[in-house]
Amino acid sequence: MSGPVTKVIDEFTFEDGSTFGAVPVAYQTWGQLNSAGDNCVVVCHALTGNTNVADWWGELFGPGRAFDTEKDFVICANVIGSPYGTLSPLTLDSRSGERFAASFPVPTIRDTVNLHRKLLDLLGVKRVRMCIGGSMGGMQVLEWAFHRDLVESLVPIAVGGRHSAWCIAWSESQRQAIFGDPHWNDGRYTDESPPSLGLAIARMIAMTTYRSFTSFNQRFGRAVGEGGADAQFAMKGYLHYQGAKLVDRFDANCYVRLTESMDSHDVARGRGDYLEVLASITQPTLVVGIDSDILYPIAEQEELAAYLPNAELAVISAPHGHDSFLIERIELSERIAEWRRRVLE
Amino acid sequence: MSGPVTKVIDEFTFEDGSTFGAVPVAYQTWGQLNSAGDNCVVVCHALTGNTNVADWWGELFGPGRAFDTEKDFVICANVIGSPYGTLSPLTLDSRSGERFAASFPVPTIRDTVNLHRKLLDLLGVKRVRMCIGGSMGGMQVLEWAFHRDLVESLVPIAVGGRHSAWCIAWSESQRQAIFGDPHWNDGRYTDESPPSLGLAIARMIAMTTYRSFTSFNQRFGRAVGEGGADAQFAMKGYLHYQGAKLVDRFDANCYVRLTESMDSHDVARGRGDYLEVLASITQPTLVVGIDSDILYPIAEQEELAAYLPNAELAVISAPHGHDSFLIERIELSERIAEWRRRVLE
Repeated sequence: MSGPVTKVIDEFTFEDGSTFGAVPVAYQTWGQLNSAGDNCVVVCHALTGNTNVADWWGELFGPGRAFDTEKDFVICANVIGSPYGTLSPLTLDSRSGERFAASFPVPTIRDTVNLHRKLLDLLGVKRVRMCIGGSMGGMQVLEWAFHRDLVESLVPIAVGGRHSAWCIAWSESQRQAIFGDPHWNDGRYTDESPPSLGLAIARMIAMTTYRSFTSFNQRFGRAVGEGGADAQFAMKGYLHYQGAKLVDRFDANCYVRLTESMDSHDVARGRGDYLEVLASITQPTLVVGIDSDILYPIAEQEELAAYLPNAELAVISAPHGHDSFLIERIELSERIAEWRRRVLE
Repeated sequence: MSGPVTKVIDEFTFEDGSTFGAVPVAYQTWGQLNSAGDNCVVVCHALTGNTNVADWWGELFGPGRAFDTEKDFVICANVIGSPYGTLSPLTLDSRSGERFAASFPVPTIRDTVNLHRKLLDLLGVKRVRMCIGGSMGGMQVLEWAFHRDLVESLVPIAVGGRHSAWCIAWSESQRQAIFGDPHWNDGRYTDESPPSLGLAIARMIAMTTYRSFTSFNQRFGRAVGEGGADAQFAMKGYLHYQGAKLVDRFDANCYVRLTESMDSHDVARGRGDYLEVLASITQPTLVVGIDSDILYPIAEQEELAAYLPNAELAVISAPHGHDSFLIERIELSERIAEWRRRVLE
């Protein structure tokens, strides 16, 4: 494993026409790119995720696991709009010397994949053995499918082919919580007074959608928490803790733009009829769904598995909801490794 | 049908010891109480509901329907904490001449039922043939069970025996959205500047939990709305509309107190072991669940049906989520009417 690295792409144009020069792309790699450049595995991170796959998906690495760095060159690049090093609202605008902040455009999932393609080209990657990711990472995986000259197989997890009205509704209430913070100021807030409360509320909403009735009840039930009336229920204390934790590590403009980016997700946008576009994704694909996911319910993965001509569906049975793709790491690794051996080798 | 009426109860003490004099209770009735006083049907309304059952459950009234006002005396009383006429944060404190507002205590579900019991006594009701309600109404139904001298049968709908950690989490993010509004001011806001934005956001979150992946996708999908960028998706416009609509008809202090009241719901509080308390509810009970309800999932109604010794379960299969109890009125009426004929007559 190398630490995070940043490459600079001379120029990049978004789907909406916005053009940026000297575009930073942060990434991490594990293993070695072989001389043919054909042993790459692309891992795509989720909304508030980062490039340190070994940290959040450590159990997927190893001999016989999903990623075998004796053979695979694993790379994870930070998405556009995320605060961890790639071009985002936190990037300084060289013209003004200030951050782009609220003037930053909405990056589509396609924009991020197009930028990451430039990174892979720069690194000499000629073939991608597998693109894999969950949630927003899964959206990127489905967009990578259209880089047909490069990408050999796909593992989209806990995602659908287009962002549902249901998910747009969840995104929207989170954005409104941020917009309602008196410090928001249309995104022109200062480093000293960011809209922390709004961002924390957005995270509380999101954290709940990521889990499930069963997981919260098993863990908290009606247990009473510490710290007085405001934390009467341990459940409330947990949400407040999660809200505060995100505020410490994320930026509100980034959060807003990334949720808008997710809302833009639609593999059929500009490509034709939705089901025909799904049918055009011909790479071998392992679609992974979680039976307790309320956010991207199993119906979405069943749809992908039904319409992608070379897809099969793996259902992970777990009580933790959407976040199970970050929790059930051993089972996930086993499912992927078995599929790779059986279908790809 | 008579219009809304208000009776005043001389004195009422909450579970937490708060005592109020001259307590208003608003209610509506349909049909006539018979001379024996034994033909009452109590309908319990939900969080933002009101006493006009004929308006929101009209199809349940009629010969052969759930409520037959040739035989039944139907009553619905407004809960404590709701803005529609019963004692609430909007009530004037006679000592100060101001509204109780944020000084209003948290009413438990049990408090509301205890107050409504006083109303029934005042009206001369001797027997309640059936207590029925969905969501927060269902919580009241389960508390009415412990008025064993009065209540003959129960129809709790889309509810569990105690508020889950999952539901507490949803309540909490809604309250935080209200608390985050700069006009909130710890509940001491003015009529001119209420925390409307926070209340609207709370409603957006709640409305989403009341529906489902399928219902929103069928109705909105990725359709583009009218009115420019902010309403790019019709889904967003719908949420904003629902938020604004609640702001026009509800009060933030009332909303906060009612969600806290729901969080207090636990039939076992102060009564012993949860499952033993369920087993002590011996009235004939029709538990109604909705298969697409993410908020009070079918597992909760299965639990009630399993542990209440004289209960049976009716599952309504509908795509609309929790709100199906307000939408699938014909099926609901048929299920209840059939059960009444078979079990109660």
